[in-house]
Amino acid sequence: MKARIGIIGTGWVGTSVAFSTLLAGHARELWLHDQRGAVAEGEAMDLSDGAAFYPRCNVRAVPLAQMREADIVVLAAGRNGRPDESRLDLLRDNARIAAGFGQALAGFGGVILVVTNPVDVLTRVVRAASGLPPERVIGTGTLLDTARLRERLAVRLGVATDSVHAQVVGEHGDSSVPLWSGARVGGVALRDWPGWRVDEEAALALTVRRAAYEVIQRKGATNHAIGLVTAELIGAIVNDEHRLLPVSRVQDDGVALSLPALVGAGGALPVTAPAMDRAEREALVASSDLLDRAFTSLAG
Amino acid sequence: MKARIGIIGTGWVGTSVAFSTLLAGHARELWLHDQRGAVAEGEAMDLSDGAAFYPRCNVRAVPLAQMREADIVVLAAGRNGRPDESRLDLLRDNARIAAGFGQALAGFGGVILVVTNPVDVLTRVVRAASGLPPERVIGTGTLLDTARLRERLAVRLGVATDSVHAQVVGEHGDSSVPLWSGARVGGVALRDWPGWRVDEEAALALTVRRAAYEVIQRKGATNHAIGLVTAELIGAIVNDEHRLLPVSRVQDDGVALSLPALVGAGGALPVTAPAMDRAEREALVASSDLLDRAFTSLAG
Amino acid sequence: MKARIGIIGTGWVGTSVAFSTLLAGHARELWLHDQRGAVAEGEAMDLSDGAAFYPRCNVRAVPLAQMREADIVVLAAGRNGRPDESRLDLLRDNARIAAGFGQALAGFGGVILVVTNPVDVLTRVVRAASGLPPERVIGTGTLLDTARLRERLAVRLGVATDSVHAQVVGEHGDSSVPLWSGARVGGVALRDWPGWRVDEEAALALTVRRAAYEVIQRKGATNHAIGLVTAELIGAIVNDEHRLLPVSRVQDDGVALSLPALVGAGGALPVTAPAMDRAEREALVASSDLLDRAFTSLAG
Amino acid sequence: MKARIGIIGTGWVGTSVAFSTLLAGHARELWLHDQRGAVAEGEAMDLSDGAAFYPRCNVRAVPLAQMREADIVVLAAGRNGRPDESRLDLLRDNARIAAGFGQALAGFGGVILVVTNPVDVLTRVVRAASGLPPERVIGTGTLLDTARLRERLAVRLGVATDSVHAQVVGEHGDSSVPLWSGARVGGVALRDWPGWRVDEEAALALTVRRAAYEVIQRKGATNHAIGLVTAELIGAIVNDEHRLLPVSRVQDDGVALSLPALVGAGGALPVTAPAMDRAEREALVASSDLLDRAFTSLAG
Repeated sequence: MKARIGIIGTGWVGTSVAFSTLLAGHARELWLHDQRGAVAEGEAMDLSDGAAFYPRCNVRAVPLAQMREADIVVLAAGRNGRPDESRLDLLRDNARIAAGFGQALAGFGGVILVVTNPVDVLTRVVRAASGLPPERVIGTGTLLDTARLRERLAVRLGVATDSVHAQVVGEHGDSSVPLWSGARVGGVALRDWPGWRVDEEAALALTVRRAAYEVIQRKGATNHAIGLVTAELIGAIVNDEHRLLPVSRVQDDGVALSLPALVGAGGALPVTAPAMDRAEREALVASSDLLDRAFTSLAG
Repeated sequence: MKARIGIIGTGWVGTSVAFSTLLAGHARELWLHDQRGAVAEGEAMDLSDGAAFYPRCNVRAVPLAQMREADIVVLAAGRNGRPDESRLDLLRDNARIAAGFGQALAGFGGVILVVTNPVDVLTRVVRAASGLPPERVIGTGTLLDTARLRERLAVRLGVATDSVHAQVVGEHGDSSVPLWSGARVGGVALRDWPGWRVDEEAALALTVRRAAYEVIQRKGATNHAIGLVTAELIGAIVNDEHRLLPVSRVQDDGVALSLPALVGAGGALPVTAPAMDRAEREALVASSDLLDRAFTSLAG
Repeated sequence: MKARIGIIGTGWVGTSVAFSTLLAGHARELWLHDQRGAVAEGEAMDLSDGAAFYPRCNVRAVPLAQMREADIVVLAAGRNGRPDESRLDLLRDNARIAAGFGQALAGFGGVILVVTNPVDVLTRVVRAASGLPPERVIGTGTLLDTARLRERLAVRLGVATDSVHAQVVGEHGDSSVPLWSGARVGGVALRDWPGWRVDEEAALALTVRRAAYEVIQRKGATNHAIGLVTAELIGAIVNDEHRLLPVSRVQDDGVALSLPALVGAGGALPVTAPAMDRAEREALVASSDLLDRAFTSLAG
Repeated sequence: MKARIGIIGTGWVGTSVAFSTLLAGHARELWLHDQRGAVAEGEAMDLSDGAAFYPRCNVRAVPLAQMREADIVVLAAGRNGRPDESRLDLLRDNARIAAGFGQALAGFGGVILVVTNPVDVLTRVVRAASGLPPERVIGTGTLLDTARLRERLAVRLGVATDSVHAQVVGEHGDSSVPLWSGARVGGVALRDWPGWRVDEEAALALTVRRAAYEVIQRKGATNHAIGLVTAELIGAIVNDEHRLLPVSRVQDDGVALSLPALVGAGGALPVTAPAMDRAEREALVASSDLLDRAFTSLAG
C-alpha cells in the first residue's frame, strides 16, 4: 500500500529523503514543509517536474497542520553538524525544534521518523513531546552505521554487501557498538573468515564512526546515504514488511538508542536482543549511559 | 552488464527461467533451444509479443550450436519428475541427455547452469562431459531449498523473508541438510528466538524436502520458484555480484553438491564452509555418499 | 496502493497473469481459484516458494466465494483455442462458464478483468450476468494486439517500442482494426516516416491478427504476453493511473469491443474516440457488427 | 550493458545526476570530478555509504584524465543561474569552462552529455572544442521542457503523464517551441480533446518556460528533475534503446538545438523532423537564430 508521507525540513537531508522515497515508489502523496516556505515549494515544484520518471505520486508543499493527516512524518528539520563539533554539540538547538514538532503531532495516528541529529536524543525528545507510544517514534539510528559497516566489510572481503550480515547498535555516533561477535559472511562467522584479523575491528569501527565527519569535512553535509536509509525504513513501514532492523526508539529503561526491532505498519516493536560478548555488552551500557546523560543535560 | 543468455529445454522450467530472466532485465539476448524446434519458436514469439513490458531484450529460437556464443547457458532439458518417483529415479534418462549437451559445450567460455533434476548428479555429469573447470558448471542445487526454508521460517516467525538467514546444503532432494545450528533471525540465533522449539525442526525440514513433491502432485510440475531462483543466480553472475549462495558444484572430493560459494562473473568459487554441529556434519557426509553412489551407479 | 487480486482459472493464462502480477508488485493478497482445486493449490504453493524474489505478497488458493472480497477479479477460466479453430469457435463453451462467474459476482464492488477468449463477447456476457456498470467489466481486448503492433513496428523501423505510438481497436481477433492513419513514431506520423510504405500495412496487420494462431500452432497456447498485458492493466487500476489504454468494454451501443478508455481505480471510462480515416471507421463498424452477431447467436 | 559513467562538476546538478543514475542501475563505475577535489571525494563517500540500497556500482572521485576511459561523460560544471538573470547571461563564464573540458576530451571514444546552461550554446562549444562528431555531443536540451510540458498537460487533463505525447523543440529556454499542433492524448489530437482551448496554450507554454526561474527563485537552483532527465538519457545510451527523444545537438546548419533524435549507443542520430504548423516553424527558426547569435557573440 502506498502512503501519504510528510517531510518536515527540506534541507539537504529532508530533500534527499524525498527524492529517495519518490524513486522507491513508496508514496502516493508526498508533503513537504519547511519554515522557509518558499524552499519547500521550490523543492516540490522541482520534484514534480520529474514526474515522468518515477511512480505516480502527488508532491506538494503543505502547512504544518496538514502533517497530521499523513501516515508517516519524517522529522528532518534542524541545522546540520559542522566538522568541528560532535553530534552532541548540536543537541540544544535541535532539541528545542524537535520538541515543538513533537507537540504539534500529539495524538498523531501514524509513525514519526526522526532523522535529525543527534538522532537518539531527539527521538526521546519527540517521544516525550508527542506522547505517542515508543514503537511509533523511530529514529533512523544505527541503520546508517550498519549500512556503512556492511559496505566496508563487503569491500574488505570482496563479497556482495547483501552477503554480509552485521549490525551496529547503541548510539548513532561516537559510542556506537558494532556487534563483531555475531557478524557473519554468508553463513560463516566473520571471525572464522579466512584472513580476517580481530585486530582490524577497532580501525574499521573508527572509519564507520567517523564516516559522517569525513563526508561533512569534504562536502559540508551528509545527505545521500541517510536519504536512502530513511526511504528503506519508510518502505518497511508502508509495506508492513516485519523486517528486523536496527533503529532507535525509547527502550524499556527509557533511553532511546538502536537495537534490532521488528519494523512494520505499527512501527518498531522490540525483539530479543542479539547475543553479545562481554565487551559489546559493556559498550552498549556505556552508550546508553552517555545518551541518558545527554538527555538529562537538556533540563539543566 | 547485460548478457547473452541461452536456455536449452523450453518446457515448464526452461520457460519459467526465460520469463523471470526477461523481467529481471538480465539479458540483452535471450536464446531458446528445444529438440521440439517449434515449441522453442512459439515461446520466443510469445515472449517477444510482450516486449513493451520488460527491459529491452532480443528473444529468439536458435540452433544448439549458437549456444556456444552465449555468456551463460541454462540446461533445463529433460523430463519432469512424477509424483510417484524420487528425484533419483529420473537419473538415467536425464543423465544421458545432459551428457550430450555437456559434450556439445566442450571448450565453452561461459558458465553453464544446470537446472534439470536430479540436479547434483547432472551437474557432475555435465562437468565431466564438458571438461569445464568446476566453478563454471553450477547447479541451482539447494538455492531453491534455501528459499523455501527461509520463506517457511519467515511465515512461522512473523518476520520478513529477508530477515531470516538460513541455509540448506547437500543434495537438492531427500538428503538435503538444513543448517539449523547457524540459522539466524536478524542478528539472533534461531534457537535463541523466543518460542522456537528445536523439535519443530524435523517437521519443517520435511516440508521443505517434500515441497516439490507436493507441488507436482497438485499441478504436475514445479516451475515458478525454480524460474525465479535461476534468474537470481543469473543476475549474480551477469552483474559479478560476488554473492555467497548455496549452489551445487563439483567439490574438492569430486562429488557435486551444494555448499555456499562465491558467485560472480567467473562462476562459483569455493569458500570456507559454514560451522555445522555434529548432526549436520554427519548428514552432509551421508548426502555426499548418496550422491556419489547415484553417480557411480550410472556406469553400472 | 497494493490490492487484493483474485484470479479465476489457473491454466496457462491465469498462471501467467499471477506470475506477472507478483513480480510487478501490484498485489498484497493474490487469490487463486480453479475448478481443479488441487491445481490452484499447487500453483499457490509454487509461487509462494519464490517469495524471497518478489515484493511481499500473500498467495493462496481460495474458494470462489472469497473472490467477492477482492479489489480486482481476473476471469481466465475457459478452455484454450486450438490451432484449427477461430476465436469465435470457442464461444459457446466459454460463454456458459463466464456467465456463471458473472452471476457469482453480482453486486461485486471491484473491477472484473475478462481475459478468456473470445474476450469481447465474454466481456459483454459477464457485464450482463454480473449487472455491474460497464466501466467495471473490462476485457483485455486489443491491448495485446496493440502491444504486438508496436513491437513489430519498432523492429521494422529500428526504434524503441516506447517511441511507437499506435493503437489497435475493435475486436481482439480477426476483425481487429489497426489505426494506421494516427500511428506515430516519436512525433512523426508513421505514414510520413522515411521508407514507410502504406502497402506494408495490410501484411503487418495480418501478422498481428495471426500472432496468437502462430504461437498456438507452435506451443499449444499463448500465455506470456497476455500475462504481462493483464498485469499492466492491473497496475493501471491499482495505482489509479488514469492511463489511456485500448481495452474492451460494453460501449454506448451495447456492443463490447476495444476503444481507448481512461483506466483507473474506477475501471475503464469512455473518452473521445481517436481520429480515423474512412477505411478505419468502416472496419470498426464491421468489427462491431460481427461481435454483435456473435453475441446474439448465443441466444439461438 | 552497464557502463562507466563520468560526471564533471559535482554541484547540485551533477550530484543529482549521480544519484539518479545510481538508483536507475545504469552504471558499473561512477566517476566524479570537481575542481573542488574534496567535494567530489565527499560526494563519492556519501554515495558509497548507501551502496546497500542501489544496484552494485563502484563510486569514486577521479582526476580529470580518468574521464577519457568512460563510456559517457556528463558535463555539469559551471555556475548556476541566478533568479535575476536569463540563461544566456550565464554564457560567457560557462562557455570558457566548457571549452576547456571539450579540449580535454578531444579524441574521446564515448558520448558527452552537456547539462550545464545555456545548454544549447555549450553543446555547440563542446562539439567544436572536442572535435567529436555531432551525434556524440548531446545536450539535455528540451528533454526537460518536454517532461515539464507533459506533466502539466497530464494534470490539466486528468490523465497519466505517459498518455500525453507532446514535444518541445528549439532552445532549452526562453525561445523553446512546444509543438501543440502535433500534441496527442492517447491517440487523440490535443486540439480535439474535449474541453481543450487553443487559447490555453500560450499560458501553459509560459509556465513551462518559466519553470526553472520559479524553482530557482524559491530554492536557489534546480536539480531533481534535470538529474532524472539526464539519467533517462544515460539509460537510452547505455542500453542502446533507439528511443526518439528531443535532445540538443549540432544540427545540419551548424546550430545546436533540440529536435527529436534517435538515441542509442552511438549517440543522437538525426531523424525526420515532426510536422509543425506555420507558427511553430517560424518559432523554431527564430529560436535557431537567437542561439546562433548567442554563439557568435562569444567570439566578440
